[in-house]
Amino acid sequence: MDIIQSPQNKQVKEWKKLSSKKGRATQKLYILDGWHLVKEAIKAKETIHLFLIVPDSRYVSEFNEFNNTNTKIMYISPEVANALSDTPSPQGIFALMNIQDTITDSVNLNGAWLLLDKVQDPGNIGTMVRTADAAGFSGVVFGEGTVDLYQPKVVRSMQGSQFHLNLIQSNLMEFITTLQRNEIPTFGTELNRFAKSYDAIGKYSSFGLIMGNEGNGVEQQYLEITDYNLYIPIVGQAESLNVAVAAGILMYALKK
Amino acid sequence: MDIIQSPQNKQVKEWKKLSSKKGRATQKLYILDGWHLVKEAIKAKETIHLFLIVPDSRYVSEFNEFNNTNTKIMYISPEVANALSDTPSPQGIFALMNIQDTITDSVNLNGAWLLLDKVQDPGNIGTMVRTADAAGFSGVVFGEGTVDLYQPKVVRSMQGSQFHLNLIQSNLMEFITTLQRNEIPTFGTELNRFAKSYDAIGKYSSFGLIMGNEGNGVEQQYLEITDYNLYIPIVGQAESLNVAVAAGILMYALKK
Repeated sequence: MDIIQSPQNKQVKEWKKLSSKKGRATQKLYILDGWHLVKEAIKAKETIHLFLIVPDSRYVSEFNEFNNTNTKIMYISPEVANALSDTPSPQGIFALMNIQDTITDSVNLNGAWLLLDKVQDPGNIGTMVRTADAAGFSGVVFGEGTVDLYQPKVVRSMQGSQFHLNLIQSNLMEFITTLQRNEIPTFGTELNRFAKSYDAIGKYSSFGLIMGNEGNGVEQQYLEITDYNLYIPIVGQAESLNVAVAAGILMYALKK
Repeated sequence: MDIIQSPQNKQVKEWKKLSSKKGRATQKLYILDGWHLVKEAIKAKETIHLFLIVPDSRYVSEFNEFNNTNTKIMYISPEVANALSDTPSPQGIFALMNIQDTITDSVNLNGAWLLLDKVQDPGNIGTMVRTADAAGFSGVVFGEGTVDLYQPKVVRSMQGSQFHLNLIQSNLMEFITTLQRNEIPTFGTELNRFAKSYDAIGKYSSFGLIMGNEGNGVEQQYLEITDYNLYIPIVGQAESLNVAVAAGILMYALKK
């Protein structure tokens, strides 16, 4: 068994570049780190480019039993695993995944869509994708200025939900107008009481819900073209809700 | 102006102990770190034990203008501020707060209560307290095994909501039976469909809602004595919801 020993290995250096947006864009690959995510990818029958495995890592036998793909496996040392992971104690199981550009035109627009306008916190984004999955949404649209969907912390926080729904990087204005051309309503979110209370507009099978930046909310240009802008009443003295919590309340309240 | 310069100062060493549960229990104090939290404490007219200020820090003039308390101010160097903070670049404004034990017997039990059963993640706990505040809850009960409510990350993540509602550390079983003696219904949360869907039981003015440990959920002994156990339907393929998101959906759906 050949094992790549050194973090200085030329190939390893290329893989390490996948932690940056530029590296992922150039190589059209991103990394899944850890057995849970790798298992979700195999389960979902995703196309996997390459497995990287530390031979004596804890989950290897489970991996060998579960892996029904023909994907090539390369073996790496714990030092290489540490160099590739952004967690302090990686499990030593990675998958390199192909990044496929989803073309908006080819997507069935029916169903509910979560639209992210410049959301910044990777944990919030991952949690929202996971909630959208749970609520039975069709997909999540990452607008410009929202953290890259293949950023390692986003990938970890999605916990595999990226294999269960459509994730699209798109111009938000284009996506909103496409929904509207298809007579699918869109809802913005606002923190002021000029907006409609979220529980006053009923439930919908197909719609787009826009969540905004943690500090600044949804951009005015989108709020001007939505069917309704919604708010969640703040009864107590908190200044605002966490964006992922607000998104959860709205997704479950609006989805028919 | 006397400025405490050295992190090795005897007094500073005592304050540093407040980052541990034991230190807080011994001194009956905890630390607020940063202008936003200190301002919330002043606004809420909380009893503040002591201010610690780096004289040339960015928010000092705002603090001086806003501070209408007679609380003693001590000045510290940036090095001391770094030693006291668990953030990489502290703002140089701290308040030492008295820990007051809330006696359950003295609390008005009317209203909605969030009960935390062995919740582990400080960020989740802080977010839940903030959501409980926003939803107009009366308070949050920290059961045994739930992370300490004065842990620095919990304090930071609550964003001042601790001054807006009752936070109680209590034996959960005792609190649940106290609610029940007062004819206030209690609801557990479960991940299985033998429980009732959360939107099938109506809305309540007074109730207790129990959220459980991130991995193991609510303990069986509590589920056995609640009025209803609730679940949030998972429509897609996600394995579960984040506990803070689930709590948000439930709090807003159940509160009248």
